[in-house]
Amino acid sequence: MTHEIAVIPGDGIGQEVTPAAVDVLEALDVDFAFVEGEAGDAVKAETGEALPQETREIAADADATLFGAAGETAADVILPLRQVVDSFANVRPAISYPGLDAVQPDTDLVFIRENTEGVYKGIESEITDGVTTCTRVITEDASEKIADFGFDYARQNDYDDVTIAHKANVMRETDGLFLDTAEAVGADRGADYDTALMDALAMHLVMHPEDYGVVICPNLAGDMLSDLAAGLVGGLGLLPSANVGEDNALFEPVHGSAPDIAGEGVANPAAMILSAAMLLDHLGYEDEGDRVRTAVEATLEDGPKTPDLGGSASTEAVTEAVVDRL
Amino acid sequence: MTHEIAVIPGDGIGQEVTPAAVDVLEALDVDFAFVEGEAGDAVKAETGEALPQETREIAADADATLFGAAGETAADVILPLRQVVDSFANVRPAISYPGLDAVQPDTDLVFIRENTEGVYKGIESEITDGVTTCTRVITEDASEKIADFGFDYARQNDYDDVTIAHKANVMRETDGLFLDTAEAVGADRGADYDTALMDALAMHLVMHPEDYGVVICPNLAGDMLSDLAAGLVGGLGLLPSANVGEDNALFEPVHGSAPDIAGEGVANPAAMILSAAMLLDHLGYEDEGDRVRTAVEATLEDGPKTPDLGGSASTEAVTEAVVDRL
Ligand SMILES: CC(C)[C@H](C(=O)O)[C@@H](O)C(=O)O
Ligand SMILES: CC(C)[C@H](C(=O)O)[C@@H](O)C(=O)O
Repeated sequence: MTHEIAVIPGDGIGQEVTPAAVDVLEALDVDFAFVEGEAGDAVKAETGEALPQETREIAADADATLFGAAGETAADVILPLRQVVDSFANVRPAISYPGLDAVQPDTDLVFIRENTEGVYKGIESEITDGVTTCTRVITEDASEKIADFGFDYARQNDYDDVTIAHKANVMRETDGLFLDTAEAVGADRGADYDTALMDALAMHLVMHPEDYGVVICPNLAGDMLSDLAAGLVGGLGLLPSANVGEDNALFEPVHGSAPDIAGEGVANPAAMILSAAMLLDHLGYEDEGDRVRTAVEATLEDGPKTPDLGGSASTEAVTEAVVDRL
Repeated sequence: MTHEIAVIPGDGIGQEVTPAAVDVLEALDVDFAFVEGEAGDAVKAETGEALPQETREIAADADATLFGAAGETAADVILPLRQVVDSFANVRPAISYPGLDAVQPDTDLVFIRENTEGVYKGIESEITDGVTTCTRVITEDASEKIADFGFDYARQNDYDDVTIAHKANVMRETDGLFLDTAEAVGADRGADYDTALMDALAMHLVMHPEDYGVVICPNLAGDMLSDLAAGLVGGLGLLPSANVGEDNALFEPVHGSAPDIAGEGVANPAAMILSAAMLLDHLGYEDEGDRVRTAVEATLEDGPKTPDLGGSASTEAVTEAVVDRL
């Protein structure tokens, strides 16, 4: 069976790390057909559109999508793409690998970020001159769906700690609904879980990430907390993510297009290759996903390192090292 | 000249650390008259009100207020109190002290948090069953005021780095207005500043806090980022804060009522005593403020330590050590 994979490298280092991930997928014994789509600043400069209709269709029709990064147009690309694949859950693991100089070497966290609502609904107005509003939306349905997904994820991946993040002491209706709904999901399952105010959680994650496992969060809280966790493990160059829907999914590194190093061929491909490993899991190739993760881990531990990790290796050299270890 | 100081210990360790700060203030040669007010869970249980009218009046009439902490009712106490003193800026320094086991020993940050709007306006509704909204408000006036305050603060306190935090790529109207307004304030002054997406900023602060100084933030972003920074320097037991208005101000530790250790007499009084030092600065006693800070620093470095810092000293012992070093 052939799996059609949409490949959207985008801008900047997206153009460098996406081919790296494709190389790794091609080195496996799985039948993929790759279909490339354009998105980002470059295509916008040419066509006026950051996310051309054709690219939307490629992503909608594929079995899964690999997305690299976009520059200035990032929000115009990734937010609609997350909708195109109907994703409701954004899965963001943040793991410290041996051999790297992490701020907190004992980090093994997975953020399960609600991917459809909150301030990301895009409901904003200028009420009058100098007065603007943003309407944050939280629904019971979306909250239940993400909590279900989060508790399933924790069970399937052997995480003992589940934390529901919220700011219900201030946003009593919206985060109150999120919290109550997620707690009800946990209670229905007889699952163990904790709840945490997201500000206090930010502090505790910095000091004691080892006390946490799966963290279920509203959309923007997940955005911030997962980047915080990237800082704990050594930077965004290491964080993969999956945008998961019922029938489709999109995989992207948490990092952006990194214009400061784009074109130099030294971008860390780890986050993108680990995103491809999540794609493998998603399509049912869990053994292959594990092989890729093991190869990346081994490379991070004793292989060539890109400059963000203190080395001087190229993206290609690191990618080859990963392929060699498969 | 006598300064009238409202003292509102509140709940839990607020009852333990607030007297400690008063002891320190009394050890100085400044003429204070302390007027005590009640607030929090305990007074709510008795009277039905977490923040009695009498306490509001005491705070409104005083020259400044010292507030400890409140328990479950924290939001019902501190959010109205911030309004009672008409505060528009929440100043939160996060500094690593020598001798403590900080995650990042090179941290010297001050968050200048907008204190009146954002999601804290409290405009929420249940639109229909299972659908809730929170209306986040950002105005040009409040954004300009906080940016002005932040740039002044940086200049007066010799911070070279000013960063404007925002999420304007998603909240284009609201954080767009915040960002544009704050940038215009910086540009008008010919000041140097950077802007940072608050998610990326969370990562960078964890990895390289030494690259940052003053961080001007919208309300909720400031809430999270300052707690994150508390994690970097060794916990909430060390972070003081000032809620500053034109004619009045309220000083409180960033920590809460800590029910887990309340009543044991081992709460770290540092955050509260450092809040009292900010009160001294505010009333024009900057030399005295410096004396208190120096005494706290010396105590943290080689004095008795409370359990949160790995020691076993009592609140009283630490307070005495600070007073001895004045
Ligand atoms: C580019 C931006 C819209 C996006 C987000 O806020 O979700 C990014 O920060 C991310 O985390 O993927
Ligand atoms: C108690 C709560 C309402 C408060 C806030 O969100 O401002 C607290 O977290 C703080 O930072 O002082």
